[in-house]
Amino acid sequence: MADNIITYDREPGDYKHWSIDVDGDVARLTLDVAEDGGLISGYKLKLNSYDLGVDMELADALQRIRFEHPNVKVVVITSGKDRVFCAGANINMLSSSEHWWKVNFCKFTNETRNGLEDSSEHSGIKSIAAVNGACAGGGYELALACDEIVMVNDRSSTVSLPEVPLLGVLPGTGGLTRVTDKRRVRRDLADVFCTMSEGVRADRAREWRLIDNHAPPAKFDELVANRARALASESNRPKDAKGIALTPLNRTLDDGGYHYEFIDVALKSADRTATLTVRGPSADQPAGAAAIEEAGADWWALQMTRELDDAILMLRTNNTDIGLWLLKTEGDADRIQAVGASLIANRENWFVNETTQYLKRTLARLDVSSRSLFAIVDADTCFTGILAELLLAADRSYMLDDRENPKNSPTIILDDTNFGLFPMPNGLTRLTAHYQDDVDAEAAVKAKIGDAIGPAEALKLGLVTYAPDDLDWKDEVRIAIEERSSLSPDALTGMEASLRFGGKETMATKVFGRLTAWQNWIFIRPNAIGNRGALKLYGTGTKPSYKWERV
Amino acid sequence: MADNIITYDREPGDYKHWSIDVDGDVARLTLDVAEDGGLISGYKLKLNSYDLGVDMELADALQRIRFEHPNVKVVVITSGKDRVFCAGANINMLSSSEHWWKVNFCKFTNETRNGLEDSSEHSGIKSIAAVNGACAGGGYELALACDEIVMVNDRSSTVSLPEVPLLGVLPGTGGLTRVTDKRRVRRDLADVFCTMSEGVRADRAREWRLIDNHAPPAKFDELVANRARALASESNRPKDAKGIALTPLNRTLDDGGYHYEFIDVALKSADRTATLTVRGPSADQPAGAAAIEEAGADWWALQMTRELDDAILMLRTNNTDIGLWLLKTEGDADRIQAVGASLIANRENWFVNETTQYLKRTLARLDVSSRSLFAIVDADTCFTGILAELLLAADRSYMLDDRENPKNSPTIILDDTNFGLFPMPNGLTRLTAHYQDDVDAEAAVKAKIGDAIGPAEALKLGLVTYAPDDLDWKDEVRIAIEERSSLSPDALTGMEASLRFGGKETMATKVFGRLTAWQNWIFIRPNAIGNRGALKLYGTGTKPSYKWERV
Repeated sequence: MADNIITYDREPGDYKHWSIDVDGDVARLTLDVAEDGGLISGYKLKLNSYDLGVDMELADALQRIRFEHPNVKVVVITSGKDRVFCAGANINMLSSSEHWWKVNFCKFTNETRNGLEDSSEHSGIKSIAAVNGACAGGGYELALACDEIVMVNDRSSTVSLPEVPLLGVLPGTGGLTRVTDKRRVRRDLADVFCTMSEGVRADRAREWRLIDNHAPPAKFDELVANRARALASESNRPKDAKGIALTPLNRTLDDGGYHYEFIDVALKSADRTATLTVRGPSADQPAGAAAIEEAGADWWALQMTRELDDAILMLRTNNTDIGLWLLKTEGDADRIQAVGASLIANRENWFVNETTQYLKRTLARLDVSSRSLFAIVDADTCFTGILAELLLAADRSYMLDDRENPKNSPTIILDDTNFGLFPMPNGLTRLTAHYQDDVDAEAAVKAKIGDAIGPAEALKLGLVTYAPDDLDWKDEVRIAIEERSSLSPDALTGMEASLRFGGKETMATKVFGRLTAWQNWIFIRPNAIGNRGALKLYGTGTKPSYKWERV
Repeated sequence: MADNIITYDREPGDYKHWSIDVDGDVARLTLDVAEDGGLISGYKLKLNSYDLGVDMELADALQRIRFEHPNVKVVVITSGKDRVFCAGANINMLSSSEHWWKVNFCKFTNETRNGLEDSSEHSGIKSIAAVNGACAGGGYELALACDEIVMVNDRSSTVSLPEVPLLGVLPGTGGLTRVTDKRRVRRDLADVFCTMSEGVRADRAREWRLIDNHAPPAKFDELVANRARALASESNRPKDAKGIALTPLNRTLDDGGYHYEFIDVALKSADRTATLTVRGPSADQPAGAAAIEEAGADWWALQMTRELDDAILMLRTNNTDIGLWLLKTEGDADRIQAVGASLIANRENWFVNETTQYLKRTLARLDVSSRSLFAIVDADTCFTGILAELLLAADRSYMLDDRENPKNSPTIILDDTNFGLFPMPNGLTRLTAHYQDDVDAEAAVKAKIGDAIGPAEALKLGLVTYAPDDLDWKDEVRIAIEERSSLSPDALTGMEASLRFGGKETMATKVFGRLTAWQNWIFIRPNAIGNRGALKLYGTGTKPSYKWERV
């Protein structure tokens, strides 16, 4: 395993760029970026600009608020620097990064911002961007992800999306999508806004719907406090709940992969595959809310989710040549179903809900990962309930039909968790997406809830793609893997991004689909990254030289 | 003007690749590509593969059926070659084309296919793909655009989308989108289908929903005839109507631009702008259906639309360095409103409906054109009714406020045509898209239907972006043009594609947004077009060599 491996776990005590201050039901997240604290060397994080490391801390801080601070109803995101809120993604970092790094970085920051909105909708954690200085690019995109944007009216600070005029790229972390679909800025004003480098000051920003409110410096804190109170009153977060400490993950790395208690990642570089195995609980899990809270971070549902989330991020960032993830499961079907039942029975409990939402977001991370996903349902697997979501997240699946010893054939068991608990980014269940909205097919599997579905029946129901018998199994799976691994990674990425999201679109799918695809295109065009491109030349004083052809 | 200018007008008598045979209410469009009849030299159009020239004929043939053959209820698209339906876009053409050419080609073919679906929904022209041989890639994408796909079951012919495995690119002409959203092929089967180069034969193709029906060779014609009869019974096309001949367009080209009777395109290469002026009728137009049919191709609504359509295509294909189109209008407001009223009063008439749908599609072509659009509302303009759609299609607008001589200020007049007659590809009116679904703002302009809205009021209503006074007008417009023309063309393309389509998504916007953006990205990746890329090496016998990094 390489020494320069990137890890995503963070601890508030070690934050370099953010701080969390909890005061009653309001948490203040303050961004005060350490210029020399970049994740990679070679750039300075000036003007509260950020890189992947800064965003890892933000993601961690939001997780801490979700789990460790259940009484927090409102998060105020603000800057610790004078006259600057956030200048967005660091340009020198972007211009010196490889294409895949930029794209992976944007994906993670998008997920963090979507997570902020998700927690507003599903966990009652409301958010305010307290824009206390210049707010540009990715800084404004972070503000756009908050429920409200309030801004200091000091007659000089502006909000701006200067990517197009200054850098020749898009505001690609949701900026264009949220300006139209969330803030509903008039179309022509959005055009003006996104092409002006200087941005707009508070008065006009409110008039154009770019912000919700503003106040002069002397009254700004009061405005923020008032809005925080107002938003807190809309929150359904608990009173006097005890937080769940997110203890450090227990992860080992070696040449073979990443190893956790419930997740194992086995890397096979020669095949360019990773086998990702998710294990069910090794003992009975608590059923009631009090006992679940008591178990805390050791509760299987939370621990497994944290480990899975980490494994996905590790693989995405450290193993770009691994194009195919083989999804496997192990465990005791009854115990997994019992956990599923406890998620539903206790869904009003804040901690159970928070864990469910986190698992939903983690599965969504899988949906938008640019890797092929094959579910391998072999003799020892346990695609049951919660874990059956992995079967449905896969691009295709192979299930062993052991005709020699039918008792050795695996079974699949669906439960109520598969019918609405973990919607994809497009708002559909994975079953609905799998069957492309074929209501008859879905009704047929719904009738089988709780049944152990063998290979022949799974094939007939269309739950699995192939069910080779024991004689063919090894060869068929091997050939499928070899074939997949031989295809162009780029074509697969575009294909999977399209086929996984049939039907309905949401703001999230528009960000990951349309906006990201355009940005990826622009990110490799000479007008942005060529030697005379805007992204390359930014800050040098030399003007970019464009090829004028419109494509 | 360059000698090698590309023009889009075609005449059935001069077709090289298609033929139209009308028999009662069924028209048979037969594809029999002339191998040596490529639009550009350097490739042979083998196996009924196509290039832009082949698709221009298809687009023309569909237009002839719409207007010249009003009694046709069903179009059967089939092949005149033995054992091959269509092999899709010609690979040698693709691999030898520049990036912009590929993208422009795909856009036009997408528009033709969307037009086929549009005419099924809005004109009662149903379509059947009679797949009488191998049907691959763009050939299958053409079939997907038809209402039904019937296939010969000769135990060898297949339908396939081999782009990913063979070429390292996507089925980007709607293939991925229609497989999921229209045919609703199960997600994992879609994954298998789109990664297999050999395709699937008739039996399995029907099982997987890739086709609707099949028959052995001896019974194939009968099946097609039966399905044509069934679809004809669903059509509301007229009986015994007299067709309207689409007479040749009267277009002059010179160094200054393209000139028609009602459209003028003035090119200004130094500024990289084109001024596109649309003129209203020069005389009163017929009001009743009979008189409108009598006017035929000379009816202003049709002639103007044909000229506008042609001008857009000419500009897109021959003037890639012209990044900004300035939209202007001229004419008599009363006459334009009268035409609008006649479109609504006679909407049950097939010819009036056909013209309205054509204008709708032409305006939609503007929406998806990768050019900046500024509406220039100066002293002599007439943004009224139908022509006000151009104001609303623009990314932004400038309206003169002549304070010295208020009577010289232009006015804008909306009428009922602006409230639903010409929906954008996302199904929204341009007013709804402009106001981003702000119902109050829309109600306020609706209350002004028929009023002459001056600059101050237009600004207040948010109908225009800027209304400079006569002293500032020239400078302000000049600076806006200069600024726009200085920005990166790629960034503008991605930005405009995002901002123009806020909110709702449809299959059409998914094709033009998500799918096209991914394809554009893949089209410039070394894995496709590098010296060892799949698109470059196809047919040489040498295997492509991929960079395995997943992005």
